[in-house]
Amino acid sequence: MVGFDADDTLWRSEDYFHAAQAEFERIVGTYVDLDDVGARLYAIEKANIELFGYGVKGMALSMVEAAVQITDARIHARDLHRIVGLAKELLQHPVELLPGVREAVEAVARDFDIVLITKGDLFHQEKKVRDCGLAGLFRRIEIVSEKDTGTYGRLLEEFDCQAREFLMIGNSLRSDIAPVLALGGWGVHVPYHLTWAHETEAEVAADAPRLRVVEDARGIPAAVAAAAREAAALA
Amino acid sequence: MVGFDADDTLWRSEDYFHAAQAEFERIVGTYVDLDDVGARLYAIEKANIELFGYGVKGMALSMVEAAVQITDARIHARDLHRIVGLAKELLQHPVELLPGVREAVEAVARDFDIVLITKGDLFHQEKKVRDCGLAGLFRRIEIVSEKDTGTYGRLLEEFDCQAREFLMIGNSLRSDIAPVLALGGWGVHVPYHLTWAHETEAEVAADAPRLRVVEDARGIPAAVAAAAREAAALA
Repeated sequence: MVGFDADDTLWRSEDYFHAAQAEFERIVGTYVDLDDVGARLYAIEKANIELFGYGVKGMALSMVEAAVQITDARIHARDLHRIVGLAKELLQHPVELLPGVREAVEAVARDFDIVLITKGDLFHQEKKVRDCGLAGLFRRIEIVSEKDTGTYGRLLEEFDCQAREFLMIGNSLRSDIAPVLALGGWGVHVPYHLTWAHETEAEVAADAPRLRVVEDARGIPAAVAAAAREAAALA
Repeated sequence: MVGFDADDTLWRSEDYFHAAQAEFERIVGTYVDLDDVGARLYAIEKANIELFGYGVKGMALSMVEAAVQITDARIHARDLHRIVGLAKELLQHPVELLPGVREAVEAVARDFDIVLITKGDLFHQEKKVRDCGLAGLFRRIEIVSEKDTGTYGRLLEEFDCQAREFLMIGNSLRSDIAPVLALGGWGVHVPYHLTWAHETEAEVAADAPRLRVVEDARGIPAAVAAAAREAAALA
């Protein structure tokens, strides 16, 4: 069985968050002259994750909080309203598949049961899944609040799938690769040109067993096939 | 199989939203002298549901938007920050089971497979499920983005359960009762003393077939048993 991550693996996501953050820094920059606005925002986002979880709405609430703190409450209500507007724009963004994704997913689906495993806001992720045009190819679509060994263990049990027969494809070492390797599964890492600081907080050796790294989605089918051959040889 | 709703069926929820809204009206009331602040907030919340979905974070973002609009952007950043604080307080509130709920759930679980079906924010609902002390009794816990006939139909298929063998217990006619009755299932309505305007938007006759109404959780086991006898007689 093969799992696909969604944000920044199937479709563009971090680019939009990145643009929203740049706009946030521009807004706040009209009040203060600081070069660590981004770092201050991230500190607040990180502290709020245990309450807000992942996703656009939590990001926007953290931005309101950060903007008030950073400007010592001098920020105008219209500018805070603009931050809510950034969230609305993000939530309405059309789904844009990354190059080669459609062909890669179709190719893998011909040979394996495929599932979609994504974390974040239930409502927003469901919308993107509906809009992406690939939903029908996946046997299961799992939207979870965190992607750690506990989550993957529970899902594999539900799928009735052994870890050694499971391969996860994604852009985040922290969420897609490290926990699956730790359980004894396989990984195909597809790095994305932008990665949220939070998702870089994992160490996985490039030559870790059962891990392959590909440059973009076009490399996925061959990497999956090679991993499947290796897994069959080990079985 | 018996499904339980969660918010305002198992545990207190709307009371906290109601208190947050009262605080919102108090904050905004220091800027404007209007008697329809609550109605204006609800109009914005309702318009935003298709983007934000249900839950505390969407409510808070709608509150920021409403506060800016209602005060014509005269509201101070500290007061908008206070609205984010309301969301944080709501998200941290301990789970408080309603009277008789623990005994009712345990009693129904002795005779039936029970499942929990709740809508809203994945992260917050998971936290409440973890904290409620009843999670182990449920065969499945389903957090969904909307509770309509489409959602219940999909879940019943996943549960491999016929609608005529499914009974849903909840406080919302709109989300818990009407769609299940429409599919041919059974309902036990447990009205709650407070209901969000959105959840009252459904018409179900009090004498509808396959529906029972109980005063509080203590009435649930007998109502479920009576429905099961009636269902068995019809089968």
